[in-house]
Amino acid sequence: MNQSGLPDWRDSLPWPGAETHKHARGRLGVVSGKATQTGAARLAARAGLRIGAGLVRILCPPDAAPVIGPAIEGIMLTPFGSPEALAEAAGGMDAVVVGPAAGVNEMTRDNVRALAFTGAALVVDADGLTAFEHWPEGLFEALDRDDVLTPHEGEFRRLFPGLLEAGRQPAAVEASRRAGAVVVLKGPATVIAAPDGRLAVNDNGTPWLATAGTGDVLAGMIGGLVAQRMDSFDAARAAVWMHAEAARGFGPGLIAEDLPGRLPAVLAALYEQAG
Amino acid sequence: MNQSGLPDWRDSLPWPGAETHKHARGRLGVVSGKATQTGAARLAARAGLRIGAGLVRILCPPDAAPVIGPAIEGIMLTPFGSPEALAEAAGGMDAVVVGPAAGVNEMTRDNVRALAFTGAALVVDADGLTAFEHWPEGLFEALDRDDVLTPHEGEFRRLFPGLLEAGRQPAAVEASRRAGAVVVLKGPATVIAAPDGRLAVNDNGTPWLATAGTGDVLAGMIGGLVAQRMDSFDAARAAVWMHAEAARGFGPGLIAEDLPGRLPAVLAALYEQAG
Amino acid sequence: MNQSGLPDWRDSLPWPGAETHKHARGRLGVVSGKATQTGAARLAARAGLRIGAGLVRILCPPDAAPVIGPAIEGIMLTPFGSPEALAEAAGGMDAVVVGPAAGVNEMTRDNVRALAFTGAALVVDADGLTAFEHWPEGLFEALDRDDVLTPHEGEFRRLFPGLLEAGRQPAAVEASRRAGAVVVLKGPATVIAAPDGRLAVNDNGTPWLATAGTGDVLAGMIGGLVAQRMDSFDAARAAVWMHAEAARGFGPGLIAEDLPGRLPAVLAALYEQAG
Amino acid sequence: MNQSGLPDWRDSLPWPGAETHKHARGRLGVVSGKATQTGAARLAARAGLRIGAGLVRILCPPDAAPVIGPAIEGIMLTPFGSPEALAEAAGGMDAVVVGPAAGVNEMTRDNVRALAFTGAALVVDADGLTAFEHWPEGLFEALDRDDVLTPHEGEFRRLFPGLLEAGRQPAAVEASRRAGAVVVLKGPATVIAAPDGRLAVNDNGTPWLATAGTGDVLAGMIGGLVAQRMDSFDAARAAVWMHAEAARGFGPGLIAEDLPGRLPAVLAALYEQAG
Repeated sequence: MNQSGLPDWRDSLPWPGAETHKHARGRLGVVSGKATQTGAARLAARAGLRIGAGLVRILCPPDAAPVIGPAIEGIMLTPFGSPEALAEAAGGMDAVVVGPAAGVNEMTRDNVRALAFTGAALVVDADGLTAFEHWPEGLFEALDRDDVLTPHEGEFRRLFPGLLEAGRQPAAVEASRRAGAVVVLKGPATVIAAPDGRLAVNDNGTPWLATAGTGDVLAGMIGGLVAQRMDSFDAARAAVWMHAEAARGFGPGLIAEDLPGRLPAVLAALYEQAG
Repeated sequence: MNQSGLPDWRDSLPWPGAETHKHARGRLGVVSGKATQTGAARLAARAGLRIGAGLVRILCPPDAAPVIGPAIEGIMLTPFGSPEALAEAAGGMDAVVVGPAAGVNEMTRDNVRALAFTGAALVVDADGLTAFEHWPEGLFEALDRDDVLTPHEGEFRRLFPGLLEAGRQPAAVEASRRAGAVVVLKGPATVIAAPDGRLAVNDNGTPWLATAGTGDVLAGMIGGLVAQRMDSFDAARAAVWMHAEAARGFGPGLIAEDLPGRLPAVLAALYEQAG
Repeated sequence: MNQSGLPDWRDSLPWPGAETHKHARGRLGVVSGKATQTGAARLAARAGLRIGAGLVRILCPPDAAPVIGPAIEGIMLTPFGSPEALAEAAGGMDAVVVGPAAGVNEMTRDNVRALAFTGAALVVDADGLTAFEHWPEGLFEALDRDDVLTPHEGEFRRLFPGLLEAGRQPAAVEASRRAGAVVVLKGPATVIAAPDGRLAVNDNGTPWLATAGTGDVLAGMIGGLVAQRMDSFDAARAAVWMHAEAARGFGPGLIAEDLPGRLPAVLAALYEQAG
Repeated sequence: MNQSGLPDWRDSLPWPGAETHKHARGRLGVVSGKATQTGAARLAARAGLRIGAGLVRILCPPDAAPVIGPAIEGIMLTPFGSPEALAEAAGGMDAVVVGPAAGVNEMTRDNVRALAFTGAALVVDADGLTAFEHWPEGLFEALDRDDVLTPHEGEFRRLFPGLLEAGRQPAAVEASRRAGAVVVLKGPATVIAAPDGRLAVNDNGTPWLATAGTGDVLAGMIGGLVAQRMDSFDAARAAVWMHAEAARGFGPGLIAEDLPGRLPAVLAALYEQAG
């Protein structure tokens, strides 16, 4: 991930100690889309749980609960009926992922902004970004420096028109400065930029990740690390690297559902090195 | 698959490159049957996703959505209430599979014809074929040369009465000419014919495929390759071969649900050869 | 299974040939219990599919369909609203399993009797037996010699009071004669008796099978073999042996859900011997 | 688990014998939370089934049944509409787990107390403990010496305020005396105390268990052993040790859903030693 070839975020990965209990290990919320669009939240939630968040809760519109319920066990579920109720439900969270399959509409904007004023760090992905295409300041003014935006190039162009013409790295740096949050510009060589000027380019990307739902998994992984109080810039770098590492080990035929189940092997290798 | 023993479609398999993203990799739609008949669509969709379509969306009658929802994650879901709504939902697709568990009725005919006039290549299977038993021209006039029909012998006889008496290969050639589409005549030695006269006979067939749902998986695999812009004749040949290869490696006790999960190993072997 | 130690049913196992298609391979129906009691039918159906029935269809009360739907793919589903509708739905079946989680009541009696007058061979298990405790002739008069009853000792005592006092083998012989059907008296050494006097005692029993749902799996396995036109006495012997073999290979911690997935290995070993 | 390093509960583990049938092997009930909170019960039930209870039944509020139904097969399901109905449904059980995701409210108190007056041994966990924070005697007076309480430190403090100041071991001893039941005080070194003064400290704890749902799995494991008529103190010690052993073998990335599937390997190793 840097010149030495060794990921320098490795030493700040959050491993549980003997005294760690599930609450202390970090609480992650994941906001689900409507009843027909719940798979993205389940992917993100499972990824967040696998990467070490001690408690993961899907926050969903009430009519989505019967769809999600049969498909989860260790993940918890809370329906919410309004942005205020969402913010209240997110009150006890360390981090929240919002945006996957959320819909590009006013409700998504309201939900993102309601969450931004809780104490939880946000990971804003997908529709959570595009919903602010015509009102980017409505997003940026709500963000803190520990929040993370995870656009692919299309989403990036909508939020930061013209910026990519300067190149991906300068674009990410400037976007992070404007947003006041960590920006993960996804692509073959994902760029991660922090508002304080830190910049990293991921070097283990793989084409096998070009399949639906892998972005949801990545958002859940970042959220899961941030929930464990890892620095958001390091969390984003670590998650991007592990996400690609999990995919590379699988190769052709990979689908997003495979990724969370491959995290234990990736984590175990890192844990042994941390030895 | 041909005289040399090496599949000559191997060089045209679509592998993602460093710059490939999920939309570019191909978008596949799969039309589900009614609420009690959704398993076929899920098998086809998962197969299409495994074989490399970047985005796969099940298009379903509204009352089927709560049944499908809990069983999918990376696969997306759009309910439709009319043939027009189906065609609109399929607007952004590169290929659409229609027919598995669709029902032999007017709605299926309307759905197939509505889809035929979108830009998506069609894979018409099962009930999507039988529904035109008494009006084959209603199907044929709607087809393009990149569309694919996948009848077993019973379905073939209904659409092309008398043709099989000339033998399977001449029958497939003539059927393809009449339909103006690729025809996959399934059986122990599946015959694939294109309207331009190309003809191939698959040689790795296996009796373990004689179990419910394997045809749905095959339709999804063909659709998944066509969605990646592989030539439809080559896509059909490649899918038929890989489908049988996945089954042969399993042997006795195979059920259709096993097949999508075995595609990664089949793909990996082909990818290494493509080296 | 007999003196030589080699199962003499081995040579009559139904293996598909090059020309076999799914319909020819055998069609199995499984009758589900009510909406809260559908798991037994799903276990039986999956076992029947794994053991080689080409088509397996669960027949269920209408309100059970939304529960079963999300959990099946290659297995088909038909709701029925009356014994007459059930018999009609079973019309195309080669064999039907009835009884698991069916309920001990008049509807179960009506369903069993309606099925008995279709052309399908019956496997009557669990509540399908107990429901006739006070009217055994209502069951026996409806049975044919290719039907199979699969009682454990408690169910056996209810249908054949007093018979077990003579010992398990004579009891099974007499029960089979009275019922006019194959009787599988389950236990540590399962006894299988046919109305023509054939008798076998299974010798690979294992205590790990003493867990909920294993009887449902066995009923599905017998049904799956009978659907493939294996002689019912041989089918029962073969299924009982394979069922135990699958369990023995697993050992402690076995649950019924494990069994269908272990059948491929058991079948493969038999297939190789059949060489 | 004791000075010799060999678990002295090993010899009292319940293994099925040739004559054991599923009813004799032990019947376990697990009380589910409301419709959005059913995952905990499913985890506990599956764990109880894996560890050897012959029959496991989830007892659930009526509106939770459609959520649980699609996710279970060998596990049975009975809806209940009142504490009286719950007690009646639990009538045939050897042990019942109550508390996971139950809600901290009067209904939970009523359910626990209704169950306490059936013949089933209770495992009271999570909300089943916290619900009695302001009325601990309402819980204690209902308990028998074969019942088990499984608090983590937070739950322990609510039921036994001040007791932990004396240290974990004396606190557990005194709590067990007051409650008149076995107390499992969870933590890095879980303490197990019986009302007759027996005391044990588990020594194979692992931080990987600090993830949501592992407590539900443990409750189900204890319940599964108690249902098999293992002494409750020994059952608690055995379950705590096996639970940690299953987790240690997995390592980083463990989630609660992994644990039941790892029990067969843990059980097999113990079974071989039991030789």
